[in-house]
Amino acid sequence: MDEARLLITCPDRPGIVAAVSGFLYAHGANITELQQHSTDPEGGTFFMRLAFTLRHLDLSRPALERAFREVVAERFAMAWRIAYASERKRVAVLVSKPAHALLELLWRYRVGELPMDLRLVISNHPHHREEVERFGVAYHHVPVAAGGKEEAEERMLALLEAGGVEVVVLARYMQVLSPRFVARYPMRILNIHHSFLPAFAGADPYRQAHERGVKLIGATAHYVTEELDGGPIIEQDVVRVSHRHSVAEMRRLGRELERTVLARAVRWHLEDRILVHGNKTVVFV
Amino acid sequence: MDEARLLITCPDRPGIVAAVSGFLYAHGANITELQQHSTDPEGGTFFMRLAFTLRHLDLSRPALERAFREVVAERFAMAWRIAYASERKRVAVLVSKPAHALLELLWRYRVGELPMDLRLVISNHPHHREEVERFGVAYHHVPVAAGGKEEAEERMLALLEAGGVEVVVLARYMQVLSPRFVARYPMRILNIHHSFLPAFAGADPYRQAHERGVKLIGATAHYVTEELDGGPIIEQDVVRVSHRHSVAEMRRLGRELERTVLARAVRWHLEDRILVHGNKTVVFV
Amino acid sequence: MDEARLLITCPDRPGIVAAVSGFLYAHGANITELQQHSTDPEGGTFFMRLAFTLRHLDLSRPALERAFREVVAERFAMAWRIAYASERKRVAVLVSKPAHALLELLWRYRVGELPMDLRLVISNHPHHREEVERFGVAYHHVPVAAGGKEEAEERMLALLEAGGVEVVVLARYMQVLSPRFVARYPMRILNIHHSFLPAFAGADPYRQAHERGVKLIGATAHYVTEELDGGPIIEQDVVRVSHRHSVAEMRRLGRELERTVLARAVRWHLEDRILVHGNKTVVFV
Amino acid sequence: MDEARLLITCPDRPGIVAAVSGFLYAHGANITELQQHSTDPEGGTFFMRLAFTLRHLDLSRPALERAFREVVAERFAMAWRIAYASERKRVAVLVSKPAHALLELLWRYRVGELPMDLRLVISNHPHHREEVERFGVAYHHVPVAAGGKEEAEERMLALLEAGGVEVVVLARYMQVLSPRFVARYPMRILNIHHSFLPAFAGADPYRQAHERGVKLIGATAHYVTEELDGGPIIEQDVVRVSHRHSVAEMRRLGRELERTVLARAVRWHLEDRILVHGNKTVVFV
Repeated sequence: MDEARLLITCPDRPGIVAAVSGFLYAHGANITELQQHSTDPEGGTFFMRLAFTLRHLDLSRPALERAFREVVAERFAMAWRIAYASERKRVAVLVSKPAHALLELLWRYRVGELPMDLRLVISNHPHHREEVERFGVAYHHVPVAAGGKEEAEERMLALLEAGGVEVVVLARYMQVLSPRFVARYPMRILNIHHSFLPAFAGADPYRQAHERGVKLIGATAHYVTEELDGGPIIEQDVVRVSHRHSVAEMRRLGRELERTVLARAVRWHLEDRILVHGNKTVVFV
Repeated sequence: MDEARLLITCPDRPGIVAAVSGFLYAHGANITELQQHSTDPEGGTFFMRLAFTLRHLDLSRPALERAFREVVAERFAMAWRIAYASERKRVAVLVSKPAHALLELLWRYRVGELPMDLRLVISNHPHHREEVERFGVAYHHVPVAAGGKEEAEERMLALLEAGGVEVVVLARYMQVLSPRFVARYPMRILNIHHSFLPAFAGADPYRQAHERGVKLIGATAHYVTEELDGGPIIEQDVVRVSHRHSVAEMRRLGRELERTVLARAVRWHLEDRILVHGNKTVVFV
Repeated sequence: MDEARLLITCPDRPGIVAAVSGFLYAHGANITELQQHSTDPEGGTFFMRLAFTLRHLDLSRPALERAFREVVAERFAMAWRIAYASERKRVAVLVSKPAHALLELLWRYRVGELPMDLRLVISNHPHHREEVERFGVAYHHVPVAAGGKEEAEERMLALLEAGGVEVVVLARYMQVLSPRFVARYPMRILNIHHSFLPAFAGADPYRQAHERGVKLIGATAHYVTEELDGGPIIEQDVVRVSHRHSVAEMRRLGRELERTVLARAVRWHLEDRILVHGNKTVVFV
Repeated sequence: MDEARLLITCPDRPGIVAAVSGFLYAHGANITELQQHSTDPEGGTFFMRLAFTLRHLDLSRPALERAFREVVAERFAMAWRIAYASERKRVAVLVSKPAHALLELLWRYRVGELPMDLRLVISNHPHHREEVERFGVAYHHVPVAAGGKEEAEERMLALLEAGGVEVVVLARYMQVLSPRFVARYPMRILNIHHSFLPAFAGADPYRQAHERGVKLIGATAHYVTEELDGGPIIEQDVVRVSHRHSVAEMRRLGRELERTVLARAVRWHLEDRILVHGNKTVVFV
């Protein structure tokens, strides 16, 4: 729990690793994980994630961050942030009728696989209240009436704000969020789409997959942007199907995929393993 | 080698299995494999593949086929055919510069994994002649000049006809075939497309995949129809990639996929395991 | 729900399919699925699973079974049984501390993915009572004291008998069952072992896997026999690991595998898709 | 081609990354890849692989290595080495009758996927001479007579020495190498075993797999040690099988696996991506 993570994006040039690791070493921060990626060593973009322990730090956290900015970050024109494992992210889950993805998150939350502070669940259906409250999590039913999306989103944003929510997970939430809503949580809304994107974006992807006669079906976790099902992909997986699988059976198989793929993406987000660059992700796992 | 395969498509209704298996038993044909599929037991379409041995047949092949038509097929309004393992299909491979899919087919052909009579290889490039001729297979270089596609296709069709070719395999052949060409080999031209269709149809799919930032890349074997990359899918597979994979590395990984997926599809076609229905396939493996 | 399944094992010889399908057709049983397998067409063993609808049956169920025995089964020396989808199997789950496999079964049961009558859960720990009772299922805590296994098994067998249990699922039940217990439910006790058997049988397989440095870890669902982790394998799957995975992380990944693999095996058992032959299974999916 | 790779194993303690990256930066070596792993930040073992460009190096290679030893390596008690991409490793392939793994390596070698200097192929069979020589590689037939293994190994060692061979790849070489032979190439002999080790070590693993009734078959690439099929595992993969797969069909499927798994392991070895620690590998991919 005394782990911190430093995430960096900057123009690539020699000396970055030396500068960052030298700085951390000088202040007693022991590096436990280090991953880096460069799109091109000549003139590309450089990404890095370092995990380090705070135990022997010779500075306070604010002093560390200030010193890092002055000594290292400005020199290399870095976009950067430090996240602390002890400050668990405050999360809200949005869900419609199908409960499988929600339940998967709740269960993993309970056994400690998802290091978050799950503040609330919002649904446009009343069904999951009992289930959610059993896990000690607040449940809010925010119906979306025809023509009432703006009002519903207002209510939801108020709930998110009241809960201090930092991350929103769409666990099969079937309403399209407005650009205004999305803009409030840039690269902090995760969605699970039940197809192998970019194939079968939009509605009823299993039916689309069945009609096209594909031999694998997939699920995609991605950040939500203004473009429907078009945001940066975090994780994908597939499962084999054949002519014998009806749409209903694809849905059954797909539920397994959706649960697993979303849970992975959420965990990586919570552990600060994802850097977004343009419309793509760098995932350090 | 004394195996025959009976393939049936017909409206579903009670009694088909009993009629077909009863007929075969009565004539000494011992069933060794039987697979069936129904899109819907009430009013759907019924598909069946039976493999049987000819050893104890009490009729000649033509007599068997005639009797089957009269006694069984007409009663159930069947589309059907019988194929004999001893009559290996005559195959041509079309290929452009990348040799990996061609080589895979040649190797598997030589070790007996692909029960075909490989008559010729046609390429719009001269490069693979030596390699192909080593395997004892004729190589024809048919360049496609700008504006000269019709002429090239004429030459190719003449070569295919002269070779008595029944099946055409596009092992990374980069020219789009004309509808006229395709119509000559309906559901008998197999192509390998280097993406997980329907995602990334068209040109340079690995570049498209890289730009979209997908986490899996795929390959798709399908029958060629008039619609580019739109024909019935036979087989697909995927491999995991990450931000670390450049387009070139995706191509390297993709080569493995393409080889495997195409080889599977070709084998299934040669073993009469594929039934086409609308724009989809029933593959009995 | 008016589906029946006929499962057959017998010496292979010509005419079986014709006899069985002819019999069913004659009595108004419409075949909806048919799968067969032969270890060797000459002198091998023949396996078949037929699903058929009872709607237009011209006999009662007992009369159908009697007629089948007399007209078909005896002629071909068949081991056979007919199962009816409407008669859902009565199931008990045995579990120790880890709850993931149990919860997976409960969820799938509730959403209708597992067509069973879940009568009771037995655990040597008291922990899961609340969770299980929420699903409307009886929970029995049967502790196993040192030297008290025989007594505990007596209690468990009494509970199973009182519940009319036909199938026992070990969802990470950490006690080895005695041969006497096993003999009461031959090929009707399913276990999930957290390794890719036959590798890492016995205790703490993730630790064994970590020590051996394997690059994939697995899970295996199998029928329980007298030989520990040695019974017929029903289903297996694997997930990739690397040097970065500690034993704890292997356990986390393994939980996903165990849940999925066990759920598949249980569903196949409930749908009468598994035939056991020697120490192997024929699974018709 | 002006890439170098620095591989380090040492006791873990703070400051290693800073010292190494600072050293390289000071001498104009631009880091392009950096991966590290620690078995335990407190008292564990630390592994690192750095790739860097030599273009702007301010020292000769020998001077760089000497300086690294004195300034960094001794301070941290490192086991280390620097490998240069331009110095392609000299490789020999040993093979028996089955050619698939050999051909895979030859083909990848030719298209540039395996950056090695393939000096010779040795076989206890004469069959593959023509094939190998076509690729411009020397072929040596060294039969192993009954009781003549020692003599055969002497001949093989002489050939390897004459070729300056650094790495030996067993591409389905069916003779067990003596401890004496193995000791000459410690962690430099790679083998492909046709099972998912540790399951089915020893002879005829596909038959063993068939008899046990597993639902997945595998292949394992590992370093050869004195213990048969017991050396550090480099890579593994599996493919799904069912009751329908005979031993012959498992062999056919297995060939695909063996080719792919061995090719991956060889490439990783050639690119200096593998560190051996005890009986396990750290593979930085």
